[in-house]
Amino acid sequence: MPQSRVSIIGTGLIGTSIGLALASRPDRQYEIVGADRDRTAARTAKKMGALDREVGSLEEAVQGAGLVILAVPVVAARQILQDIGRYLEPGVVITDACSTKSDIMRWAQEYLPESANFVGGHPMAGKEKSGPSAASADLFKDATWAITPSPRADEKAVGVVLGLVETLGAIPLYIDSAEHDQYAAAVSHVPLLLSVALFRMVRDSQGWEDASLLAGPGFRDLTRLASGDPVMSRDIMFTNREAILHWIGRIQDELSTVKKALEIGGEPVLDLFRSTQLDRDTFIENPPVRRRPEGVGAPSAQDAMARMFVGGLYDRLKEVSSRGPGAPKDDAELRRKLGVRDNP
Amino acid sequence: MPQSRVSIIGTGLIGTSIGLALASRPDRQYEIVGADRDRTAARTAKKMGALDREVGSLEEAVQGAGLVILAVPVVAARQILQDIGRYLEPGVVITDACSTKSDIMRWAQEYLPESANFVGGHPMAGKEKSGPSAASADLFKDATWAITPSPRADEKAVGVVLGLVETLGAIPLYIDSAEHDQYAAAVSHVPLLLSVALFRMVRDSQGWEDASLLAGPGFRDLTRLASGDPVMSRDIMFTNREAILHWIGRIQDELSTVKKALEIGGEPVLDLFRSTQLDRDTFIENPPVRRRPEGVGAPSAQDAMARMFVGGLYDRLKEVSSRGPGAPKDDAELRRKLGVRDNP
Repeated sequence: MPQSRVSIIGTGLIGTSIGLALASRPDRQYEIVGADRDRTAARTAKKMGALDREVGSLEEAVQGAGLVILAVPVVAARQILQDIGRYLEPGVVITDACSTKSDIMRWAQEYLPESANFVGGHPMAGKEKSGPSAASADLFKDATWAITPSPRADEKAVGVVLGLVETLGAIPLYIDSAEHDQYAAAVSHVPLLLSVALFRMVRDSQGWEDASLLAGPGFRDLTRLASGDPVMSRDIMFTNREAILHWIGRIQDELSTVKKALEIGGEPVLDLFRSTQLDRDTFIENPPVRRRPEGVGAPSAQDAMARMFVGGLYDRLKEVSSRGPGAPKDDAELRRKLGVRDNP
Repeated sequence: MPQSRVSIIGTGLIGTSIGLALASRPDRQYEIVGADRDRTAARTAKKMGALDREVGSLEEAVQGAGLVILAVPVVAARQILQDIGRYLEPGVVITDACSTKSDIMRWAQEYLPESANFVGGHPMAGKEKSGPSAASADLFKDATWAITPSPRADEKAVGVVLGLVETLGAIPLYIDSAEHDQYAAAVSHVPLLLSVALFRMVRDSQGWEDASLLAGPGFRDLTRLASGDPVMSRDIMFTNREAILHWIGRIQDELSTVKKALEIGGEPVLDLFRSTQLDRDTFIENPPVRRRPEGVGAPSAQDAMARMFVGGLYDRLKEVSSRGPGAPKDDAELRRKLGVRDNP
């Protein structure tokens, strides 16, 4: 018997993977409702078991939902934020999975009603293929999931998104939205452009037919991101242009440095490869420690959220949180916030 | 009872993977001998089952061998070609797995005795990790394996290398060495430099600590090649410099084009992502057809080679080749070429 409702708007790779992971919890006490502009995609997600119900409108999707997840390209998210306001339950928590964060934080502030809690999110996970049929429940396992709370969101709302992220097996990282966009330009958006530029370079060369015969796993890996969803990529470029232009300049400088080193030759070339291998191996073998953020949301609130919201998460959160006395007291308010109807 | 001997010089990722694949054939009739300047690496390869015997000198490694495989960085291969001449059996077949082909073809011509048959080779396969412990018998499965025969090598020698490549599960591609180096610069060497440049850019930036927390699978995949063996990378740069410099210029042009498109904005950005996704998906889903080269080596000669040399390959080759009448006649000469002693 679902006691609450999670709404997933956008059932591509990310939205469907979220649905699959949420649906797979045996003790879950929530219903998963999903919608996509492309109804074939939403129906595929439903068939795969990622949704309990597929609906045809934003209104149906968010009505009665305690948590709304926007898993669409960021420019589409803008329109959705403008449209859903009037259908939202008071106290609803809204989060997203968009690749850039500054614009969407601004739009949420601008378009959502005061009673809605927006907490930005961005899972650092992906695949060569897009679309629901590429989705899997373990897509987010051990992935970093950036969380950018809006100034207006209350701690309990942040706790709900934290619970969601942990339920999906990801590791939450609290970060300011402007910082997120700067760093994402370097580690994600410029790599995407390198993939595109490399693929185009070889594909548009006269030797493509022969060169493609020689292309091995290195070329395949380096160009993987060029197979990503074009609209998502375009939206990234439009909403993070300044940072991306800055980092394109930086990678051009790096390439000029490499080029000079090759022209001169000698030991510096070996030193470059040696130090880079060492640094990268260190990064891969001892990745930076990502810790569950501390001091966000009273443990009691999280416990209560978790109990109602993500069912099985409750026990896991109990292990890491010492229970406060406030949990039962919060229940009524939380139930309201989450759009949960009192038992008759 | 081994009837012949294969010698693997260099027991890193590639050499050890070749050894593992050759050793795994249940019906094999050859002994696998291996050597590495780093004897720990060679002993690891032996322990993993890639070698029947590990030896401490080039002399011991190539003595009595019918096939010698050089699996070392290309500059090291030069020295080995200079050193092994006097120990080689007449008619021996020598091949390599080096990343560039023009220089090594020239060195083979220059340093090897007339009686040796050099056939260049380059498997388009690799891994994030180097060294014998990263090796696996299926590393070459379905990989393209470039073959660049020297003008001096006879057809039977080419047949032996063809048999080796097919035994390893790879797909042979005949290609001129200069062409190989041009295309490899585009699909392999420049990607390596992009990996290095991207990793250095982020690693050397002031935001590394925060940026690395956000780095997901995209960054990891795009920088994978930066973890390759630094000596191998250096050797690639030294032996294919002109082509690499040319293609660095090309990728810089591509990046400038992308940058301009972003600055202007609008539809061209979406068009760029759309057409690249389409082209890349086409390339991945319908890769260029690689066919077993035709008309190289009389079937009879290949049959004979295969029977003696790679054991189980014999039956497979029989299926695709109609036997000629010359096979039995060739046997004595072939046995000599392969360094096989007549049965007592």
